[in-house]
Amino acid sequence: MADPVFERIAIVGVGLIGSSIARAAAEYGAAGSVALYDMSDDVRTRAAALGIGDVSETLADAVGAADCVILCVPVGALDEVAAATVPHMKAGAILTDVGSVKKQAAAALAAADNGKIHAIPGHPIAGTEQSGPEAGFPTLFRNAWHILTPREDGDEAYTDAVAKLAAFWTALGAKVETMEAARHDRVLAITSHLPHLIAFNIVATAFDMETVEQGEVVKYSAGGFRDFTRIAASDPVMWRDVFLNNKEAVLECLGRFSEDLAALQRAIRWGDGDMLMREFSRARTIRKAIIDAGQDSGAINFGRNEAVNGKAKS
Amino acid sequence: MADPVFERIAIVGVGLIGSSIARAAAEYGAAGSVALYDMSDDVRTRAAALGIGDVSETLADAVGAADCVILCVPVGALDEVAAATVPHMKAGAILTDVGSVKKQAAAALAAADNGKIHAIPGHPIAGTEQSGPEAGFPTLFRNAWHILTPREDGDEAYTDAVAKLAAFWTALGAKVETMEAARHDRVLAITSHLPHLIAFNIVATAFDMETVEQGEVVKYSAGGFRDFTRIAASDPVMWRDVFLNNKEAVLECLGRFSEDLAALQRAIRWGDGDMLMREFSRARTIRKAIIDAGQDSGAINFGRNEAVNGKAKS
Repeated sequence: MADPVFERIAIVGVGLIGSSIARAAAEYGAAGSVALYDMSDDVRTRAAALGIGDVSETLADAVGAADCVILCVPVGALDEVAAATVPHMKAGAILTDVGSVKKQAAAALAAADNGKIHAIPGHPIAGTEQSGPEAGFPTLFRNAWHILTPREDGDEAYTDAVAKLAAFWTALGAKVETMEAARHDRVLAITSHLPHLIAFNIVATAFDMETVEQGEVVKYSAGGFRDFTRIAASDPVMWRDVFLNNKEAVLECLGRFSEDLAALQRAIRWGDGDMLMREFSRARTIRKAIIDAGQDSGAINFGRNEAVNGKAKS
Repeated sequence: MADPVFERIAIVGVGLIGSSIARAAAEYGAAGSVALYDMSDDVRTRAAALGIGDVSETLADAVGAADCVILCVPVGALDEVAAATVPHMKAGAILTDVGSVKKQAAAALAAADNGKIHAIPGHPIAGTEQSGPEAGFPTLFRNAWHILTPREDGDEAYTDAVAKLAAFWTALGAKVETMEAARHDRVLAITSHLPHLIAFNIVATAFDMETVEQGEVVKYSAGGFRDFTRIAASDPVMWRDVFLNNKEAVLECLGRFSEDLAALQRAIRWGDGDMLMREFSRARTIRKAIIDAGQDSGAINFGRNEAVNGKAKS
């Protein structure tokens, strides 16, 4: 096995992502040793029981000897956690994160930067609906994109640090991309943030219908609703932070979504079948593009027979 | 194996549902023989090649000797297909369908009813995103709900026919429920029709964003968007018919959805984190209810790390 990319890494926040990084780093030899810290006593105890790294009782102990510190906390906690972390880091070490909003993450890391470390924001487009340290697994990042949003005015040492962090994620099996933080936030607003907001909303709407019993919604959720509840099962704290910190991009997407939905609503009200056909047909080509691009994890049974009734005609 | 529920059934429209019924009826001995007809020459040829039933060249040949005729065509085609079918059916035979809008289906079957057959609308809450006769499989309906919306003024012979049709679907492994057509349409409007409309819409919105390249949307679709494209890959003809035929119930859900979304939009704009937390937290309890009710087919990887970052705090 090749030499580890980092002698020692430290993971702050041991959820599915933090524990998956710890397991993957060990499995693929990307780090010589892994230090873990979580502000929750309970999570620290569970992480220690799993034996996925050296669990420290203090943040200082965890990050002191690390060549790379990875913050796996909600975006809204990054300011505080980064500020508390940097003073304990050794000179020349890398500070990165896994947050979903990169402009905010970049600002949080930059604010904490004491000039002796290399702050490089990052975001792995990977995960499952499971959570907690027990849910982690070493293959989570394989073939998933990992987006780095490094500063553009970095010196040679910084550039080397970015290359080293990219090598670390590549060793974990990820496909690494670098892009500007603002662009990341615009792309994720439509590919991740808006879809989640919509999912949260439709679930709430369904359970406020007086005309339908909640039990019926649950019972017949296989009709399509169920897939939204999966997405809407995400952590409320994390998502609150995402929307509060990527406000402009999300509101822009949301405005367009509502406009487009109003047009569909009008077509339904006035019986404009041609318009509905036109819009619904576009979606298939997009789905095909995603499958062709190999971005899909395969067919799932989402309990619908409608798509195929139609086929009786084709 | 027990005696077949029906001596002979006829399936009109051989898509995934039609071909799955044919395969299941044979596999579980629910029918002595299966006649198949599809208006498409191509689909008839493919169905014959699959050897999943006796493919007839005319509708009359297919349904003439059947004790039960199952129409597996889009809701918008039911009027025409039912009218063309009934004159060829033998007295006392059952006419049913698998359409997603039961008020319209009930009207279509009732209009075609010549008083010699038993018209019993039905809807299996089952399917996959695959389609066509090749995609069918015999276990599709196992543990899935099958909703029957029989008329309430039926005589004893009609009641017996409903019991027989229920026995047929039970033999295929389905859980049979009877409910009023209007109630079915209200329940499906929120559990199936609105989710599909939203999915179609967000996919269209994403591809109209000038600020983000379509390639980026495809590339980073694992962030949540991908799951919507699955749902939005459904057959446009079928869905056009659903929305045109369940207008009132869908518009009612849509109005509420838009109201609720506007409230979330306002909370994001004004930074009302407490409101977002409250709404997002509700969705988890609903997801839990669905899993507890055994209505979920299990966890899927929808490529998100956010849900679990949050866990670093918990």
